[in-house]
Amino acid sequence: MHSLLLIAHGSRRPASNDEVRELANKVKAIAGEQFSNVSSAFLELAEPDIPAGIGRCIAEGASEITIVPYFLSAGRHVAEDIPRVVNTAVMQHSNVKINLLPHIGAGFEMPAFLLRSTIE
Amino acid sequence: MHSLLLIAHGSRRPASNDEVRELANKVKAIAGEQFSNVSSAFLELAEPDIPAGIGRCIAEGASEITIVPYFLSAGRHVAEDIPRVVNTAVMQHSNVKINLLPHIGAGFEMPAFLLRSTIE
Repeated sequence: MHSLLLIAHGSRRPASNDEVRELANKVKAIAGEQFSNVSSAFLELAEPDIPAGIGRCIAEGASEITIVPYFLSAGRHVAEDIPRVVNTAVMQHSNVKINLLPHIGAGFEMPAFLLRSTIE
Repeated sequence: MHSLLLIAHGSRRPASNDEVRELANKVKAIAGEQFSNVSSAFLELAEPDIPAGIGRCIAEGASEITIVPYFLSAGRHVAEDIPRVVNTAVMQHSNVKINLLPHIGAGFEMPAFLLRSTIE
């Protein structure tokens, strides 16, 4: 069972965290057979945190977890904090395959996505 | 002449700001006839700031400027700070049409974009 976990920064504004949770639901709705489950976790300021988010995926039966940092630029959080926390989880759950992808701002489709967003 | 202006938060890390400038260049490269120019400006911590970015577009001949906040969630910056600064510019440049679009995280294509980013 393969789970997708979005990691966002987390905000003091509950509505902002709910936006991320809702996005995970929308991705889940279109994921088809690619992912059995899609959920979200937060680096700080909101729940679940990253270790708890990974733990939930495993409790739900995930044997593989793909993690996508929902960040636009590679600041310290993307370059250092998230890999550190994820690596700790990798060592704790050696029976689960955990893949950490680049932050979404690095995606090669971002320029086209941005351009399309101007004509919606 | 129609210009596209990306607005990012701005970072203390020069590499992060350069990522945004490079993204604007990539969008420009694929914009075709949709936009005569594509550039970037920053809410804080980097140059140009938003008024200077708008001023540059006008100095280059823009009669219309479409502004896209390069933000994922609607925090205070998206909900309050950017509209306030843009509205001031709108009043100062009444001969130029200035359109402020929603932040990119609000785009209805974001779930599909996110899903595609997991298989690149």
